Amino acid sequence: MKDQRDQNIPYKIYLEESEMPKTWYNMRADMKTKPAPLLNPATLQPMTAEELSAVFCEELVKQELDNDHREIPIPQEIQDFYKMYRPAPLVRAYCLEEKLQTPAKIYYKFEGNNTSGSHKLNSAIAQAYYAKQQGLKGVTTETGAGQWGTALSMACAYLGLDCKVFMVKCSYEQKPFRREVMRTYGASVTPSPSTETEIGRKLLEEHPGTTGSLGCAISEAVETAIKSEGYRYVLGSVLNQVLLHQSIIGMESKIAFDKYGIAPDIIIGCAGGGSNLGGLISPFMGEKLRGERDYHFIAVEPKSCPSFTRGVYAYDFCDTGMVCPLAKMYTLGSGFIPAANHAGGLRYHGMSSTLSQLYADGYMEARAIEQTEVFKAAEQFARVEGILPAPESSHAIKVAIDEALKCKETGEEKTILFGLTGTGYFDMVAYQKFHDGLMSDYIPTDEDLQVGFDGIPKFPGN
Amino acid sequence: MKDQRDQNIPYKIYLEESEMPKTWYNMRADMKTKPAPLLNPATLQPMTAEELSAVFCEELVKQELDNDHREIPIPQEIQDFYKMYRPAPLVRAYCLEEKLQTPAKIYYKFEGNNTSGSHKLNSAIAQAYYAKQQGLKGVTTETGAGQWGTALSMACAYLGLDCKVFMVKCSYEQKPFRREVMRTYGASVTPSPSTETEIGRKLLEEHPGTTGSLGCAISEAVETAIKSEGYRYVLGSVLNQVLLHQSIIGMESKIAFDKYGIAPDIIIGCAGGGSNLGGLISPFMGEKLRGERDYHFIAVEPKSCPSFTRGVYAYDFCDTGMVCPLAKMYTLGSGFIPAANHAGGLRYHGMSSTLSQLYADGYMEARAIEQTEVFKAAEQFARVEGILPAPESSHAIKVAIDEALKCKETGEEKTILFGLTGTGYFDMVAYQKFHDGLMSDYIPTDEDLQVGFDGIPKFPGN
Repeated sequence: MKDQRDQNIPYKIYLEESEMPKTWYNMRADMKTKPAPLLNPATLQPMTAEELSAVFCEELVKQELDNDHREIPIPQEIQDFYKMYRPAPLVRAYCLEEKLQTPAKIYYKFEGNNTSGSHKLNSAIAQAYYAKQQGLKGVTTETGAGQWGTALSMACAYLGLDCKVFMVKCSYEQKPFRREVMRTYGASVTPSPSTETEIGRKLLEEHPGTTGSLGCAISEAVETAIKSEGYRYVLGSVLNQVLLHQSIIGMESKIAFDKYGIAPDIIIGCAGGGSNLGGLISPFMGEKLRGERDYHFIAVEPKSCPSFTRGVYAYDFCDTGMVCPLAKMYTLGSGFIPAANHAGGLRYHGMSSTLSQLYADGYMEARAIEQTEVFKAAEQFARVEGILPAPESSHAIKVAIDEALKCKETGEEKTILFGLTGTGYFDMVAYQKFHDGLMSDYIPTDEDLQVGFDGIPKFPGN
Repeated sequence: MKDQRDQNIPYKIYLEESEMPKTWYNMRADMKTKPAPLLNPATLQPMTAEELSAVFCEELVKQELDNDHREIPIPQEIQDFYKMYRPAPLVRAYCLEEKLQTPAKIYYKFEGNNTSGSHKLNSAIAQAYYAKQQGLKGVTTETGAGQWGTALSMACAYLGLDCKVFMVKCSYEQKPFRREVMRTYGASVTPSPSTETEIGRKLLEEHPGTTGSLGCAISEAVETAIKSEGYRYVLGSVLNQVLLHQSIIGMESKIAFDKYGIAPDIIIGCAGGGSNLGGLISPFMGEKLRGERDYHFIAVEPKSCPSFTRGVYAYDFCDTGMVCPLAKMYTLGSGFIPAANHAGGLRYHGMSSTLSQLYADGYMEARAIEQTEVFKAAEQFARVEGILPAPESSHAIKVAIDEALKCKETGEEKTILFGLTGTGYFDMVAYQKFHDGLMSDYIPTDEDLQVGFDGIPKFPGN
């Protein structure tokens, strides 16, 4: 145990129920340059609320388009659900600090303390709630690694809502346990591409042996929602509404820090579509946007799917079937598929429009990390802190360790916060490969990336 | 959300660090009839501290033999480690109550919020700590379903102690993910029976195709500890010392209840070797033993391995290799092996001597439940409470639901507490069988049981 342990600060800071946030924080309200709007691919005009309402619940459309209201009240029912697994603890990583012999103070916000095993539940319950409020029968969605599908199944079971999940076929077959968790919560899980949709049938005809992709599963889920009476589509990342719901992560963290008079210097989050990173940084970024306080934000992504660090900032399709609106984002192209040796999530070709704008405006740094480095950090963390981290979260761990080691060199006592988004219980195949020395790194060549970039739509200004 | 929700009681009660127990509670100190001592199988005399010290750490031997001291201080280092994942929340199951439409108030103590996924870590860290204090190089143990091995690996990684786990071969092969978690924490994991021990080699010669048993893995771990310089053997259940460490579960629960002026009427725990049940009931049983307050205790076991409900109370071997001392307990005989269709843990043939004595003296009730009923309860619980329970824990859930439904009939507002010992992340094969209708129940016949009983040693008074 670290000698210099601060006896005034608990190991894990839990908020009291009365201290928990009652509103979500909408970062867009404080952005001088707002994120670019979604465009209708046919007209290249901003999507209207009416157009979006064919796909999304009405209240969620409002949230998606709302660039003005800084605080959005969290409905009481959602607050009550949050109490089932929140507050998430803000943990001081004393043992990691000691292991690294760093003067840095490392904190992590741990979002893995619920059965879905990740932060995804924060938005799943909100989206399911609004669907229920609208009197819908159910929702459709896609899932890759399975965290989002699990979270949504759980939320729908709680609210008595039907849940149809299109699961990328290779995950459906390789991650049968994730599938069974969803079935435990009563969801129907279909491997994608499937014969249930036009897009699925078309893809299966063209590529009979395909094992699917996230972009294809999105297309199937959207098509099913549009064609089914009483259903809407929900998405676990990328969208503005998702970042809004996930702001609960950052708000709880900030309240906990404020309570003890602490402010982080560096805030680190892994970035796939941006749901966790956007949520974690929200209130801190708000202060930075308003010029009240500076923070050093670091987005961490895999070198095998480097949207921020090697993507282009342009309007692109969110799905491979091209049925979704165009979003302006850092993108590798909707045709980009990460190498098969890439484990875990963070495989999406694009990135949240909000985070993309913030990155373009210089508010954040981004770093890309090799897979084996990520698993080394994961194992190091597990052995001292006791939590088996998800590969996604371990990207943030790696950079937190790097920053703490820099402090060791300089002697600076920086306070570091990183998001520990979830647990790695369903990623043991990847851990096994790592232990057996069978895990490899793959960094796409410029030529590899060009294939994806070639698929980005060309129109004036893009 | 339940209308009658009590706004003064948080959804989840977390103790403050300052409220956490600083001592373990030793139930034996309050027992009028002490649990029967371990016997040396060669001499049939009580095992001495010296004899036990060849197998166990010295401090743990003291704890094992201590029937007198009511409170044993928890060393500061263990208290600090506990802070990494404790306090465990005491949760009011409002959603389950609402689903059942019961006037009963249901609480559960959730021990699954750590990577090992169960309560086993409470004793693992204590046993590893004392081994470290004694200057040992490492410890050996066995694991079946894998919860104990995972917990011990984690504790050893934290303390820099070597950890050798003998894992029942069928689990080693069928639960590769559990094995990988242990490897992540740096443990060596050997399938049992192995060629590393005399007992293992003998068994493999006699039964070349055997997939092993818990009793055999215990024998191998004990042999390895005795023969290796600087190693001792540790065990995750059954022993008095384990119940002592696990008393943290019940003590935290009691402090949390007391804080809000609540007392449970019924306390329910699943029972395999007794580690969770014994820990959960400890301080409440103490009050009952001292005549201060009455509680209704219910031990729940699988119908396929019914030590309490169909076993005999006698001295028996703890392992199949018969290298361990004899323990007086409710036992099915060390040769009893539950049917292959039995999923999860709770497969041990015997039961804690302390709990056996309490049961013999009428302080507890015991019930046995069929496997499919257990999984039905598990799924019902998961859908409303959001936690995916371990099959072991779900035995307690089933009886908690039964008792809550009785209250619905009688209109009684009883307060029910049950132990939710862990999560079911590594039990999805069993859940899948249940979903697919492939799960069956097996209740051993009297003839089946007789085979086990025939192996119980015969000597005067047994």
